[in-house]
Amino acid sequence: MEIKIVLMTAVASILALLFAVFTAKKVLKFDEGTDTMKKISQFVRRGANAYLNRQYRIVIIFFAVIFVVLGIMAFMKLLTPYVPFAFLTGGFFSGLSGFIGMKIATASNARTANACREGLNKGLRVAFSAGSVMGFTVVGLGLLDITIWLFLLKFVFKLPDSEVTGAMLTFGMGASSMALFARVGGGIFTKAADVGADLVGKVEAGIPEDDPRNPAVIADNVGDNVGDVAGMGADLYESYVGSIISSCALGVSAYKSFGAMALPLCIAALGVLCSVIGTFFVRTKEDAGQKQLLGALSKGTNFSAVLIGIISFPLVYFILGKENYTLYFPILAGLISGVLIGRSTEYYTSDSYKPTQKLAASSETGSATIIINGLSVGMLSTLIPIIIVSVCVLVSYFVSGGAGNPAMGLYGIALAAVGMLSTLGITLATDAYGPVADNAGGIAQMAELEEVVRERTDALDSLGNTTAATGKGFAIGSAALTALALMASYIDKVKILDGGLEKISNLSINNPTVLIGLFIGACLPFVFAALTMSSVGRAAQSVVIEVRRQFKEIKGLMDGTAEADYAKCVDLCTRSSLHEMVLPTIVAVIVPVVVGLVLGCSGVVGMLAGATATGFLMAVFMSNSGGAWDNAKKYIESGHFGGKGSDGHKAAVVGDTVGDPFKDTSGPSINILIKLLSMVSIVFAALVVKFSIF
Amino acid sequence: MEIKIVLMTAVASILALLFAVFTAKKVLKFDEGTDTMKKISQFVRRGANAYLNRQYRIVIIFFAVIFVVLGIMAFMKLLTPYVPFAFLTGGFFSGLSGFIGMKIATASNARTANACREGLNKGLRVAFSAGSVMGFTVVGLGLLDITIWLFLLKFVFKLPDSEVTGAMLTFGMGASSMALFARVGGGIFTKAADVGADLVGKVEAGIPEDDPRNPAVIADNVGDNVGDVAGMGADLYESYVGSIISSCALGVSAYKSFGAMALPLCIAALGVLCSVIGTFFVRTKEDAGQKQLLGALSKGTNFSAVLIGIISFPLVYFILGKENYTLYFPILAGLISGVLIGRSTEYYTSDSYKPTQKLAASSETGSATIIINGLSVGMLSTLIPIIIVSVCVLVSYFVSGGAGNPAMGLYGIALAAVGMLSTLGITLATDAYGPVADNAGGIAQMAELEEVVRERTDALDSLGNTTAATGKGFAIGSAALTALALMASYIDKVKILDGGLEKISNLSINNPTVLIGLFIGACLPFVFAALTMSSVGRAAQSVVIEVRRQFKEIKGLMDGTAEADYAKCVDLCTRSSLHEMVLPTIVAVIVPVVVGLVLGCSGVVGMLAGATATGFLMAVFMSNSGGAWDNAKKYIESGHFGGKGSDGHKAAVVGDTVGDPFKDTSGPSINILIKLLSMVSIVFAALVVKFSIF
Repeated sequence: MEIKIVLMTAVASILALLFAVFTAKKVLKFDEGTDTMKKISQFVRRGANAYLNRQYRIVIIFFAVIFVVLGIMAFMKLLTPYVPFAFLTGGFFSGLSGFIGMKIATASNARTANACREGLNKGLRVAFSAGSVMGFTVVGLGLLDITIWLFLLKFVFKLPDSEVTGAMLTFGMGASSMALFARVGGGIFTKAADVGADLVGKVEAGIPEDDPRNPAVIADNVGDNVGDVAGMGADLYESYVGSIISSCALGVSAYKSFGAMALPLCIAALGVLCSVIGTFFVRTKEDAGQKQLLGALSKGTNFSAVLIGIISFPLVYFILGKENYTLYFPILAGLISGVLIGRSTEYYTSDSYKPTQKLAASSETGSATIIINGLSVGMLSTLIPIIIVSVCVLVSYFVSGGAGNPAMGLYGIALAAVGMLSTLGITLATDAYGPVADNAGGIAQMAELEEVVRERTDALDSLGNTTAATGKGFAIGSAALTALALMASYIDKVKILDGGLEKISNLSINNPTVLIGLFIGACLPFVFAALTMSSVGRAAQSVVIEVRRQFKEIKGLMDGTAEADYAKCVDLCTRSSLHEMVLPTIVAVIVPVVVGLVLGCSGVVGMLAGATATGFLMAVFMSNSGGAWDNAKKYIESGHFGGKGSDGHKAAVVGDTVGDPFKDTSGPSINILIKLLSMVSIVFAALVVKFSIF
Repeated sequence: MEIKIVLMTAVASILALLFAVFTAKKVLKFDEGTDTMKKISQFVRRGANAYLNRQYRIVIIFFAVIFVVLGIMAFMKLLTPYVPFAFLTGGFFSGLSGFIGMKIATASNARTANACREGLNKGLRVAFSAGSVMGFTVVGLGLLDITIWLFLLKFVFKLPDSEVTGAMLTFGMGASSMALFARVGGGIFTKAADVGADLVGKVEAGIPEDDPRNPAVIADNVGDNVGDVAGMGADLYESYVGSIISSCALGVSAYKSFGAMALPLCIAALGVLCSVIGTFFVRTKEDAGQKQLLGALSKGTNFSAVLIGIISFPLVYFILGKENYTLYFPILAGLISGVLIGRSTEYYTSDSYKPTQKLAASSETGSATIIINGLSVGMLSTLIPIIIVSVCVLVSYFVSGGAGNPAMGLYGIALAAVGMLSTLGITLATDAYGPVADNAGGIAQMAELEEVVRERTDALDSLGNTTAATGKGFAIGSAALTALALMASYIDKVKILDGGLEKISNLSINNPTVLIGLFIGACLPFVFAALTMSSVGRAAQSVVIEVRRQFKEIKGLMDGTAEADYAKCVDLCTRSSLHEMVLPTIVAVIVPVVVGLVLGCSGVVGMLAGATATGFLMAVFMSNSGGAWDNAKKYIESGHFGGKGSDGHKAAVVGDTVGDPFKDTSGPSINILIKLLSMVSIVFAALVVKFSIF
């Protein structure tokens, strides 16, 4: 029975990968369009490839260093010898998820633009298929990675369950580190290019967005692929894997049974199957409008969610026995919470609702007002998600028997995260399709296709904004739940270490080491946001200078007789974003170890709780402020409050520019940060227990 | 001996009040200047009076309601019968502190302007004396209030010590509620008027700041007095009293001796005396420059601090006996931490240092860049203060014996807050003098005095910015320490209630009720900041509309032949700020009770910890971002990066406008919020223990 479950999971993961390959082949059959389109697409592809290659080269150094450190710790018997290797594979698969996502996205953008020449529906199909490739690659690789390690550690090396999950948590650390590099580096790249292109091109030179005369235009498109696609791929691989392995670990410590460890895997496997089925529902009629398009996408995700919601009940019943059937409810609570957080995000950031409309209206009194109100909308928007997560945590804890046995309650919380992410295959598909549509629009503009093509890609793109909001809801909500689960895993881990029980005996919140840990942890997301924002600022500044130089020095650029030096801008963005991504990541890896050595394990727990609480708030605040500004600008551009070119529009552009690093660099990175902090703490727990001051 | 200590404290408080009266008389002897100056000053005075009268009328309703609620609870034996009255006096004295501060400030602004006609030094003397009146009124009233209650409860009604401190904590709640009303209402008033006056006057009509043709100019000046002066007075009264009574309460529970309860009072009394002495050192030569002026102010505060640092050692030794002399070190740690946080604030917000200079430089690429960088500076600036507070807490806890007896350690933390605020008399004097100088500048401009007078008031004003930074450091640092002390008092309080011990037995941070309390508490400062910022936005918008209307409808306003309807703008600001101040305050009072009833006492502790951590971070972040933008603008105006009127300057004005509600409304209010949450929790503890779900 045990081996059967592992095999079943393996089959599901391979199925997901096969579906991805099959879909990719389908996408590649479409035509790339005119020669200009091919050429532009080629440029973008080359830039993105070059960036990722150089990023991986830097990341490899980091992984080598940590590998050696972990190796030394294993040699000192502070870790099992599998840990360093698990760390490497986590990083490798996370990077691979991003890489494949980027490959398919850069292969699909021209194809989507070309398909839009024939019709909106065809465009949707190509873009959504590209998104599906990414979605199923991420879940397939994630599930496969976990299954292989589980198989090796449990059935080949025959380790006890608690050591199995311990080693598996290490590959979570690898995945998180890789994800943080990808999100931060890619996030800086995309926003530096975007801001740089806009500031000089749109504002100073007065040429439209995506105009081929703008030297930074290719860099901007490359950025979408390395930031929004490759970054997101690595990020969600990390979330997915993190939620599964943390609940495996907590399952083992709560129930001491293989079933509790296997349940998260089974739910994930079930999720993959239901998501595949859901994709077949994403179809519309040829003359579909915006609403029908959204309806088509929602139909797919909703169908998958309902299917999982129904089938997971017998699954829990079958695996854990009828006395534990209540563990079904956390899964359901997670699923519902994810949807609700997505709805709240949509409410605060979509221009169909009051907050963003009012924000747009406030542009009439200038940029200061729209900034103040945008910040205020973002801060206020933290309230509903925090209540949703709180209710979800309480329900999950108590229905799974936390009142009698806290370990069971914590397992429940972890299961809620798994439930929330079980639909990842299809939600990621609807999420990742956005940047593809965005890029298609860029190519349509640069290749000077007919006006109607650009209109169609814009329709797809704006739809992408809504689905991205839902996707963000899942990402943020699951990050908070997973971080809480990882915190619990950390406490479990310390308890079984030599001398650990004593170090963790007083976790009372009025114990000063816990309290100070809390303060420092709460401060980390602020510092992290500051570092990443100022990185974007510096990188953008260098792009501005380069673009200005090209406009000045390249004769005939403005009248179209000479070509801009796109490669120079891409190279500049690459260099500065890679340079800037190192410090934030190193901070995230070193701080938990230092806090542990100074304040001890109780300080670490305080730090994790503080970082999770403020991290969640900052991520919601920054993502939603950014989203609201973006859509307020689009709302004005669609003809409200003076429309394009009015003073209000100029003010809204300022808001949108401030929002760029908020929503695409700092906000999403914080999600990864809070999990990486826990993973690092877990891996270095033995070291801290042995050498800490307190 | 016991009664002697109380008498000594009473003497010190009366001394402070006498010194305030004496200084006030001295100030009032100066001449108010020309008829125009008198008339303007009269306008401002009337507006400020009218605002405060109406504010108090609303606040009275709130106090009446809470008084009744507390009365019912006393009737149900959930509180001692003194509590409702203690609540009222706290509110009354807090309001009185603000009122007196406003009175002296509005009486001194024309006098300062007039004194500046004769020389810088004379101007400094008048403004600083006005600040001293406020500073010593606050500490005098605070100390007197505590002493009277202590005398009544202990020596007249002969209550046991723990009930004495319990009732005294209630007047802390009264003081905090009043302070929150004053800070939020005044903060909205001042920034609505400021933003409204600037947006229409400076930007649209193109007339200079403080121009008498601007209909909102008087409202702007009134705002400085009701926000920066009356708001600050009520706020610091609350901080001062809160820190003293929380440490009295912890002293009783740690040592069960009168000495431990009296020590904070004695240190406060010592602080008053040393501060009075310090004021005599604030003198300069007639030809003093900016540097010497700052030197003169620093000399006064430094001398007071050193004096307290020295004398408090024998004081501790004498009152607590030689076996407890280590309790001197928390006091010292508090004093030093206050100075260090002030230094850090100065580093991040003064244009003498890199962060603000770089921020000013980033204005060259537009308002979006300066906003991003300003937010980033503010977020980054949270790191050093949090480390300072962490070290201070750790040191205070362990040197006072917290390792052996946690209650002693918590008492140590509370003493650090008292130490930090012991110099309040003189630091508040240097702080409150800023708005007086600012107003004097406004009057000089409106009364069309010679250029040199405005230059001198500007010199005084810019000096005020630096001292205000130091003052803010003390306010924020002491708020965090006091909030921690109050949290400990809350736990103490619950423990001695019937059935309370069980409710508070599991404060472990991985207990889900604590954790969810933490999440909700961490969210409150975000929500609170959002509410206050959007209030400023709405109120400002109404001012904008009114000012535009007057410019359009009053013929001859622009060429100076007709007078603006100043009163209308003052009235408008009054109405909208009073309307807007209610919701945030009610939220702050209701949330702790609701959280308590749902999540129980452990949830409340989590909430307090979360609110303290994020509240501290948000307060530092918002104050410092705002300060940095303000000074970056001034730096540009002083001729850097294109100077006044350049595009960079326009961008910097946007930053400054965003910073206004940051630093003068939301940021300082959060300081009060975190303490009010604790006070409310303490007062309603018995109710929560009896009726909570968990």
